[in-house]
Amino acid sequence: MQDYEDTRLRVRYAETDQMGVVYYANYFVYFEVGRAEFVRNRGFSYNDMEKNAGSYLIVAESHCRYRRSLRYDMEFIVRTRIKELRKRTIRFSYEIIDPSDGLVFAEGETVHVVTGRDGRPRSFAPEFLRSFESDTSAGR
Amino acid sequence: MQDYEDTRLRVRYAETDQMGVVYYANYFVYFEVGRAEFVRNRGFSYNDMEKNAGSYLIVAESHCRYRRSLRYDMEFIVRTRIKELRKRTIRFSYEIIDPSDGLVFAEGETVHVVTGRDGRPRSFAPEFLRSFESDTSAGR
Amino acid sequence: MQDYEDTRLRVRYAETDQMGVVYYANYFVYFEVGRAEFVRNRGFSYNDMEKNAGSYLIVAESHCRYRRSLRYDMEFIVRTRIKELRKRTIRFSYEIIDPSDGLVFAEGETVHVVTGRDGRPRSFAPEFLRSFESDTSAGR
Amino acid sequence: MQDYEDTRLRVRYAETDQMGVVYYANYFVYFEVGRAEFVRNRGFSYNDMEKNAGSYLIVAESHCRYRRSLRYDMEFIVRTRIKELRKRTIRFSYEIIDPSDGLVFAEGETVHVVTGRDGRPRSFAPEFLRSFESDTSAGR
Repeated sequence: MQDYEDTRLRVRYAETDQMGVVYYANYFVYFEVGRAEFVRNRGFSYNDMEKNAGSYLIVAESHCRYRRSLRYDMEFIVRTRIKELRKRTIRFSYEIIDPSDGLVFAEGETVHVVTGRDGRPRSFAPEFLRSFESDTSAGR
Repeated sequence: MQDYEDTRLRVRYAETDQMGVVYYANYFVYFEVGRAEFVRNRGFSYNDMEKNAGSYLIVAESHCRYRRSLRYDMEFIVRTRIKELRKRTIRFSYEIIDPSDGLVFAEGETVHVVTGRDGRPRSFAPEFLRSFESDTSAGR
Repeated sequence: MQDYEDTRLRVRYAETDQMGVVYYANYFVYFEVGRAEFVRNRGFSYNDMEKNAGSYLIVAESHCRYRRSLRYDMEFIVRTRIKELRKRTIRFSYEIIDPSDGLVFAEGETVHVVTGRDGRPRSFAPEFLRSFESDTSAGR
Repeated sequence: MQDYEDTRLRVRYAETDQMGVVYYANYFVYFEVGRAEFVRNRGFSYNDMEKNAGSYLIVAESHCRYRRSLRYDMEFIVRTRIKELRKRTIRFSYEIIDPSDGLVFAEGETVHVVTGRDGRPRSFAPEFLRSFESDTSAGR
């Protein structure tokens, strides 16, 4: 399996601001959509993790660099990767890519900590780690 | 106590769209802020209702008429009223008002149903009804 | 051409609230996505209309009835129709549908007025009217 | 004048997610509100800059570290500072603070580039630099 996941989206009017571009916070929504698809396509879902395993992926850190303006109605790709996987934390990286020329609109990272229902950090379930370690084995 | 509640807000950049005005769905966020303050100032809060009483105010219907453009950085008032209170439903009305001249940017309504944790309709708690009946006694 | 347009979407985490369901204002975002696709698939786009024709579709009214809870990660269809087309106004109707059983999560309407760059009402361009009149000819 | 600006806000229902906390992207909306107030209280506004000076503050980078959960209806303070001011870039830092105990919910930074209407980088207006240099003179 390739070590990244591409999700194709289109900018909504709701996501623009009066400057005529995507409002800067909304890139993190795109990252979330990419991250969810990445996880789902490896057999997991946030809902399963939250409801069945009682595990929550709490965001500890987020970061975005904006390169080019993304505008209303434009189509783009969210390319999601796992950059680092540890016992209790996972770091995803993202690129927002123009499908027509491969140029990058924005790129970013998020770091997540696994917690239980009580909000305390815990370790990832072994099957979760196994599913994702192939994505990180390339030493990216 | 007056039968309406005024909440003063200012338009955020995040709430505008590329037309340079507040995106139409965000008026419902303003309505929510007004509704929460209305309820809070009568001794209730959504959190109390949800956590202690196990009561949820589910939205059943929402409506907005847009009269004049509301733009970035403008200050405005959300004027919230109870339009109708029944055993299991409550209808709020809202006006988004220009504090400088009293003109109306938008006006709307929301209808809510009380449910328990199981999602089933239930009646309002008696103390809730007592607190709000004075707001509706004027036969508005 | 069929007189409605179906757009398939999936609920984002960003769109949920602490009740675990889609926040009520976000249905209007879904309506916007459906409306944009409806218009795009008939050869128009908001961007063209705004930039080339100098025409803006200002929202005059919006309405939604919520029937069943839509939750995180659920897939759904936005079914968009033109309910009424006049010289200066257009009324869209929407249904948010469960693709697995056809049941309706929510339904709503929006009314739009055409204006020029100056914000004044104007008439639709003839080619716009021609493109959409077949969608309304069934007397829906 | 103090070198920071405190803006008091309250968490809206719209800003929570199904985990019962503020959705991670919304902290950047809070940063924006703090930044706008910081600039406004020094005699500028985004609107003036955009309309009169034809200057746009484009976001080049954003970052947030999440320390403690911020929940619905909680009041909090956005403390905004200028961390660095150069001829063409400005770096703001933010803390989201619990007013009851001074503890930090989250902290972050944004970097902005000044551009003209054509999207090209330009220098800040001299009066803008003068207004803000006192905020950065402490060598923070």
